[in-house]
Amino acid sequence: MSVNVAVVGATGAVGEEFLRVLAERNFPIRNLRLLASARSAGKKVIFKDQEYTVEELTKDSFKDIQIALFSAGGSISKEYAPVAVSAGAVVVDNSSAFRMKEGVPLVVPEVNPEQIRRHNGVIANPNCSTIIMNVPVWPLHQVNPVRRIIVSTYQAVSGAGAWGLYELEQQQRAFASGQPIRKEKFPHPIFNNLFSHNSPIGPQGYNEEEMKMVKETRKIFNDPRIMVTATCVRVPIPRAHCESVNIEFSRPMTPEQVRQILSRAPGVKIVDDTQTNTFPMPILASHQDDVLVGRIRQDISRDDGRGIEIFISGDQIRKGAATNAVQIAEKLI
Amino acid sequence: MSVNVAVVGATGAVGEEFLRVLAERNFPIRNLRLLASARSAGKKVIFKDQEYTVEELTKDSFKDIQIALFSAGGSISKEYAPVAVSAGAVVVDNSSAFRMKEGVPLVVPEVNPEQIRRHNGVIANPNCSTIIMNVPVWPLHQVNPVRRIIVSTYQAVSGAGAWGLYELEQQQRAFASGQPIRKEKFPHPIFNNLFSHNSPIGPQGYNEEEMKMVKETRKIFNDPRIMVTATCVRVPIPRAHCESVNIEFSRPMTPEQVRQILSRAPGVKIVDDTQTNTFPMPILASHQDDVLVGRIRQDISRDDGRGIEIFISGDQIRKGAATNAVQIAEKLI
Repeated sequence: MSVNVAVVGATGAVGEEFLRVLAERNFPIRNLRLLASARSAGKKVIFKDQEYTVEELTKDSFKDIQIALFSAGGSISKEYAPVAVSAGAVVVDNSSAFRMKEGVPLVVPEVNPEQIRRHNGVIANPNCSTIIMNVPVWPLHQVNPVRRIIVSTYQAVSGAGAWGLYELEQQQRAFASGQPIRKEKFPHPIFNNLFSHNSPIGPQGYNEEEMKMVKETRKIFNDPRIMVTATCVRVPIPRAHCESVNIEFSRPMTPEQVRQILSRAPGVKIVDDTQTNTFPMPILASHQDDVLVGRIRQDISRDDGRGIEIFISGDQIRKGAATNAVQIAEKLI
Repeated sequence: MSVNVAVVGATGAVGEEFLRVLAERNFPIRNLRLLASARSAGKKVIFKDQEYTVEELTKDSFKDIQIALFSAGGSISKEYAPVAVSAGAVVVDNSSAFRMKEGVPLVVPEVNPEQIRRHNGVIANPNCSTIIMNVPVWPLHQVNPVRRIIVSTYQAVSGAGAWGLYELEQQQRAFASGQPIRKEKFPHPIFNNLFSHNSPIGPQGYNEEEMKMVKETRKIFNDPRIMVTATCVRVPIPRAHCESVNIEFSRPMTPEQVRQILSRAPGVKIVDDTQTNTFPMPILASHQDDVLVGRIRQDISRDDGRGIEIFISGDQIRKGAATNAVQIAEKLI
């Protein structure tokens, strides 16, 4: 069975990765429609040795489309996802527009694939940092329920979009040629610096990225009792997020148990070599689908054996966005 | 009262900062002796408009010296600190050689200055990440005892020594000129990457840097009950460490109380501006003595109000090393 697929935001960082992942996984596409803003319309894109022309996204873009992969920001999703659904498509939306909406499945296929069939036209792809954390935490939660997670992130600039990567590279080149470092879209220089994730901060002092990790984890795990606190930080890394994750379980848990569970967990790769100091890091996780997990240790700040520390790294454009969405689309058909 | 001062490791990253801090603070020096390895002997160094020649460190280097500031690594300290003490000097040692030794005060002047006079010739300067964390946590601990700390670090390359900064810059320049990224002393590329702190890993899976934060905090606070777990990470930042710190108190604690206590705490500067997304970050902390504290929030993963999250940044060469040692020396005289 082949389907007609539309990619909305086809020229963005995630949109381009959608196409790469669709091609790599040999997704059964009959017709492919590439949609973007008027500014990008007319661009030529090669997909599987065939040239496609990017079209302007309009209300008429979704005729005969069965699956629409959206990654063009929340406001585009809010406006056009209902249009696509009316035209008969199922939308897999990478924005945050519908994630917490009642009746919209929020899916990490390794965690809650059964939610996919409950959709009413829209399935939401979770936040990238949340996906990357949930992939290794879920199989542990199945064995020994997780009570509380304390996470600090090290997030790559491309998580902000292709412009984030451009801005870092511009600043790197400016430094090397002795030019002043000019910030453009980030609130502070990112070269030779790091800063608190620049999403709006709510009344509790948490920024939106942090609250996504808190709330989306509960919805994906279907467990409102999981307590999460997060500190999200942007670092001068082009690609792949890292996360330092402290997990409190219901019962004692040993690093050996964790290693055993994760060694057979889907979407997880253990990288934990003390001899060569090789642990999850961006250069190993970039362009990979697996979430790398290492530094698996007993939390020595607890004397009840219920704490585990792990350090993880995952490509936020692949598993954190495009791969996760395409996996959902695969399960749809 | 003026004293004769020796700086051991005078040409290293911390040694050079010792001189800068001694000059800035107008430390009452009668005679200054700059000591280093044979390789650096003969180098000329300007201190307060006067030229000094670096001398080779030998067993005879400490005649008439009252205060010797050591920062030339643990093995040099182990060999020469006893020599300096025999010659009548008090050693302030920046290495880890004596930190956990019984009878050697381990001092952060904002925390436990009373320990200074208990020395037997050697006073140890704590690990940089530990100092930076202890400065803001101590005044909170005084009001509401801290039970547990969960910390993840974002550590600058110059913490490894001047070569760390050199290696990052070499890789930055190689990238900009299209050359391959070559690692030299770090185990992995640090440009466009981050990795677990490359100190040796012990039987519990914690590396030495992490265990320093655990053990030194207990000794400095003189409280063996404080539980600490740490994840130490090297990031591509030239200078100033950052730390994401989750603190569990004995009793409920509000962000307002924390802000009030820290606003009058010595060595602390609150940088917590939600409007401009300005929080502690390396470009603000570099070359400063204060530890910057922000992102002060209630930990929403606890329902008992006993959790606080903060994000801090401090210059690991200044307050994390040179400034702290010179402050100790000031209290000695």
